[in-house]
Amino acid sequence: MIYIGIDLGGTKIAAGVTDKDGKILAEAATPTLAQRPYQEVVRDMADCALKALQQSGHSLAEVGTIGVGIPGVAENKNGVVIFCTNLGWHDVPLREELQKHIDKPVYIDNDATVAALAESRAGVSKDAHSSIFLTLGTGVGGGIVFDGKPWTGAHGVGTELGHITMEIDGIPCTCGKRGCLERYCSATALIRMGKEAAVQQPDSLMVKRAGSVDAINGKIIIDCAREGDPAAAAVFDRYTKYLAIAVNTMVSFFDPEMIVLGGGISMAGQFLLDAIKEKIPSYLMYKTLPYGKLELAVLGNGAGIIGAAMLGMILKEGETL
Amino acid sequence: MIYIGIDLGGTKIAAGVTDKDGKILAEAATPTLAQRPYQEVVRDMADCALKALQQSGHSLAEVGTIGVGIPGVAENKNGVVIFCTNLGWHDVPLREELQKHIDKPVYIDNDATVAALAESRAGVSKDAHSSIFLTLGTGVGGGIVFDGKPWTGAHGVGTELGHITMEIDGIPCTCGKRGCLERYCSATALIRMGKEAAVQQPDSLMVKRAGSVDAINGKIIIDCAREGDPAAAAVFDRYTKYLAIAVNTMVSFFDPEMIVLGGGISMAGQFLLDAIKEKIPSYLMYKTLPYGKLELAVLGNGAGIIGAAMLGMILKEGETL
Repeated sequence: MIYIGIDLGGTKIAAGVTDKDGKILAEAATPTLAQRPYQEVVRDMADCALKALQQSGHSLAEVGTIGVGIPGVAENKNGVVIFCTNLGWHDVPLREELQKHIDKPVYIDNDATVAALAESRAGVSKDAHSSIFLTLGTGVGGGIVFDGKPWTGAHGVGTELGHITMEIDGIPCTCGKRGCLERYCSATALIRMGKEAAVQQPDSLMVKRAGSVDAINGKIIIDCAREGDPAAAAVFDRYTKYLAIAVNTMVSFFDPEMIVLGGGISMAGQFLLDAIKEKIPSYLMYKTLPYGKLELAVLGNGAGIIGAAMLGMILKEGETL
Repeated sequence: MIYIGIDLGGTKIAAGVTDKDGKILAEAATPTLAQRPYQEVVRDMADCALKALQQSGHSLAEVGTIGVGIPGVAENKNGVVIFCTNLGWHDVPLREELQKHIDKPVYIDNDATVAALAESRAGVSKDAHSSIFLTLGTGVGGGIVFDGKPWTGAHGVGTELGHITMEIDGIPCTCGKRGCLERYCSATALIRMGKEAAVQQPDSLMVKRAGSVDAINGKIIIDCAREGDPAAAAVFDRYTKYLAIAVNTMVSFFDPEMIVLGGGISMAGQFLLDAIKEKIPSYLMYKTLPYGKLELAVLGNGAGIIGAAMLGMILKEGETL
């Protein structure tokens, strides 16, 4: 049996075919062109999946399930995407629409949950009974894998770790509330802090490297911090303090066996990990107690396809048991 | 089969015998006298349990397990209490010591976890697949029940909901960090806020009712808020705002089917529930999404015995499966 995984992004649709261990056998991609009617986007998702299938040399009869990761919230019971801000989707019957093109069982979940599942099946958290995945990108996404299965809550609105309150009455968030964790821990937040610091300290290496305050990005801030620029180092210090507090929340709440950091900011690698680990003890209760390992994601962009494929396989298995 | 449940508190040991549904058949209590060597405390725990057993009319042969709820952190693998601040316990081999007196399987967990389990087996969250329990007392304790079983984390340090950061670099906590949720959501926090307000507004009904600022307690603050005293109402408003933020954290993180409030403050009943529910929408992301029910605990003091008894029964079942 093989499994189709589709990674639906705001700009790109990536689809692939994997074996039962999450090994990608073939993949294909096409632009999302999100402004189109959803029916057209879904048709391209199906075309992309069938193209990958053909390339893999396998037949449709061998396909067990289709899994889809979306940048939003879905309801697996009825296969409906409740909302998906980047795509402007609201109550889209994704399963029904996709099955018009490929008649296989369809399962849908949030992209961070799907990435969490990928790492727990084929990546860094492979042997962990419980793990939490945090994507540090434009926003902050979260995924929980427990006993090999994804958990997104009783109503599918859990593991939205980016929307835990970090600063009461803090910076307004796109979700409608204020002070959300993603306003302090996302790449967007790091860039905001970097630009604010650069305005205050125009001599900073960040400005020199970027050419202008406006052109400062996450990589420049991290590179300059690594090279010892005081303004960038202070920003990075503040940013990783927020991340250490986020790690404490995950430990005190759920105490997973492993916490995995993914998304663009995780490309900072060991430099990021060391900065957070150094700060964690200040934000943990009772310093002497054991807690989970903090690690970097290893699957990169492949996580979307792998996790979506594994999602279908696992949820189908659960129904069959 | 019947089950022994022991509720070990800082001032009182309560022990009881329950049936498989958590119905208390008999109970007994004795002072903890926490300053004694732990061996003496454990001997009294055993005596108390055996007294309840005798009163129940059942024999020791009918006892399946012994469960113990402690105000601290325990490691069930080896039956050791890692620490228990109120009792001054650190690495106490509770299982081994208790089995010197009663030779039955012994299981230990945090008292809030045990209370969560009690409510989920015999109380308000009986039919919920997932529930989170929050005790609002001297501190704030937390318990998660998932699929009928307690979850305290991969290292037993999870569901310490009282030690999630609520205010970055906020009020120092007994756990060694700052700004913990329990510094804003416990009865202790409510009393602190009430006294601070009374100092500022000495004409407050709170002072009149208590006789002095120092004598203000949680019940007086809540009663005065209910009666419309402006100072007390402002304190209660601030306190329930913190609780609404805590509820958002639980929803965004875990999205349980039900959130249950217990502990002394929950005695404020519907008045408390209404105040929190009114504020929740301001602190939830995407206002239109469904989320879990917020309810009051119903088992009161019995929860400690019932939950401990159920803990033993469930964990033993898990091992036998």
